[in-house]
Amino acid sequence: MRVLITGAAGMIGRKLTAALHARGTVQGKAISQLILHDIVAAAAEAPHIALVGDLSVAGVAEALISHRPEVIFHLAGVVSGEAEANFDLGYRVNVDGTRALFEAIRAADYAPRLVYASTTAVFGGPFPEEIPDDFAPTPHSSYGVQKLIGEALLSDYSRRGFFEGIGLRLPTICVRPGKANRAASSFFSGIIREPLNGLPADLPVARDWLHTMASPRAAVGFFLHAAELDLSVVGPRLNLTLPGVAVTVGEQIEALTRAAGADVAGMIRDVPDPAVWAIVQTWPRRFAATRAKALGFRAEDSFDQILQAYMEDDLRRV
Amino acid sequence: MRVLITGAAGMIGRKLTAALHARGTVQGKAISQLILHDIVAAAAEAPHIALVGDLSVAGVAEALISHRPEVIFHLAGVVSGEAEANFDLGYRVNVDGTRALFEAIRAADYAPRLVYASTTAVFGGPFPEEIPDDFAPTPHSSYGVQKLIGEALLSDYSRRGFFEGIGLRLPTICVRPGKANRAASSFFSGIIREPLNGLPADLPVARDWLHTMASPRAAVGFFLHAAELDLSVVGPRLNLTLPGVAVTVGEQIEALTRAAGADVAGMIRDVPDPAVWAIVQTWPRRFAATRAKALGFRAEDSFDQILQAYMEDDLRRV
Repeated sequence: MRVLITGAAGMIGRKLTAALHARGTVQGKAISQLILHDIVAAAAEAPHIALVGDLSVAGVAEALISHRPEVIFHLAGVVSGEAEANFDLGYRVNVDGTRALFEAIRAADYAPRLVYASTTAVFGGPFPEEIPDDFAPTPHSSYGVQKLIGEALLSDYSRRGFFEGIGLRLPTICVRPGKANRAASSFFSGIIREPLNGLPADLPVARDWLHTMASPRAAVGFFLHAAELDLSVVGPRLNLTLPGVAVTVGEQIEALTRAAGADVAGMIRDVPDPAVWAIVQTWPRRFAATRAKALGFRAEDSFDQILQAYMEDDLRRV
Repeated sequence: MRVLITGAAGMIGRKLTAALHARGTVQGKAISQLILHDIVAAAAEAPHIALVGDLSVAGVAEALISHRPEVIFHLAGVVSGEAEANFDLGYRVNVDGTRALFEAIRAADYAPRLVYASTTAVFGGPFPEEIPDDFAPTPHSSYGVQKLIGEALLSDYSRRGFFEGIGLRLPTICVRPGKANRAASSFFSGIIREPLNGLPADLPVARDWLHTMASPRAAVGFFLHAAELDLSVVGPRLNLTLPGVAVTVGEQIEALTRAAGADVAGMIRDVPDPAVWAIVQTWPRRFAATRAKALGFRAEDSFDQILQAYMEDDLRRV
């Protein structure tokens, strides 16, 4: 069983690589080859073939698919802030790169399983209190539009039998290890991660703001579950909104207090940022995720569990 | 006021050209130049600039936009049956051609009005009895996927200020003049058109099958209305599901009987076609079209009116 991960040098890509290495199997078969793609070399400890290059550049996708991986995790992409700042880059990587990968698979004519990383940013307001599975995606960002185009391509290429596709609309992943990034959602992780690492953290939004999150560990679980799912029970609607924990920022902080004490939680400073607040208010807050739950996708049940996952998997390791 | 129509040689393109010529104005301003694009020469009587070429070929879109049309009707596209039969052609014309046009407008940096012809084929089942405006599009055809990608691009390019876009999800257009085409929906027009022209017509589906239709005249009205609509009241959801008349095939035939007598209606033969029936059953049947109606888009109120429009506009003229 050969497995390809695009975007393998990213945070989820690295954790998924480690998880596959630890399991040694996927779909009940031994992994004989791990093919790791990114625009920089993926620093995996597991034995692997590394391929460095931009999927939208001619020949890169074909080189990856020449190994005929039976399971493909397509994580590669430009993130939301970057796609908004650089219009051409976002379309080139997120749309043209995805299409090049799909076309290379179609040309190779062997119908592998393909798990596609999408996002709840495909949704744009106005929103109902809870977003049902059949709520129409109308993204308010170039990133959301690009991921939505990938979802549409995924469903058509799958319907045509070119691959066995399944798309995962990930909620916000928290607690992200490492440094803060430029994403407006960065603070959801920062207010937990920085205090646990002895650093102050700014909170740019109101404490009663509610948002849906899942841990990196849960995200890796989503991808592995999708790789092994019986697609005959999924039906033609292949892009699933995944579950997460809907909590307020205040509830995040309460969980931090329970886990690490009031002194640690006291390192969070309320520093309202009107620019961040304006963006955050356009985001969806709570999802039904009915189909994904019925199909066995599992996130944490509480923010305490999300915090626990961070402390076990990442604290002081980065 | 310069006006561009892509796909101007098509049925709606020709009628829209004639309507603009007859009006002489759009957005209250005199039309100084009509630019007609298609892959074949558009046989318009009105004075115009003709540009023949495939939008996905480098330079074609730029040549069209070099005239800086202030209003653009983007009708060009490969139809559903062709897009399903020829995967590459459909993506090249419907996706790459649309993106090339949008990119040429972006590069020209002048933010014209752009009216995009989309389709109710963006919807895929299972359906509720009536499809609400916020029902998630999950197309079951390559054509639907390609049009949905165009919708997503339209919304992002509009949000970015590259043009003032509005997308129109047209219902089935009936009665189409001229010859039957390969579309599975062809019979909705054929059972009316052929008998009125003294020819027998085969009905491949059950008479109680319900479907939503609007006349070519209504379709032209949709495009003209969209060209002049105040987009500040439309908001960020730019792709509108348009209204139509929801009627059964039996009700179509009753209207034909009223208008032309039982002998004419008697020329329809029930010839069940399992292949057509299988396709038709995957189609949406009835739409709420709440927003489009509130924004002033008007279809006919009855199939008698649709039939009347055909008799006035097209009968014995083709």
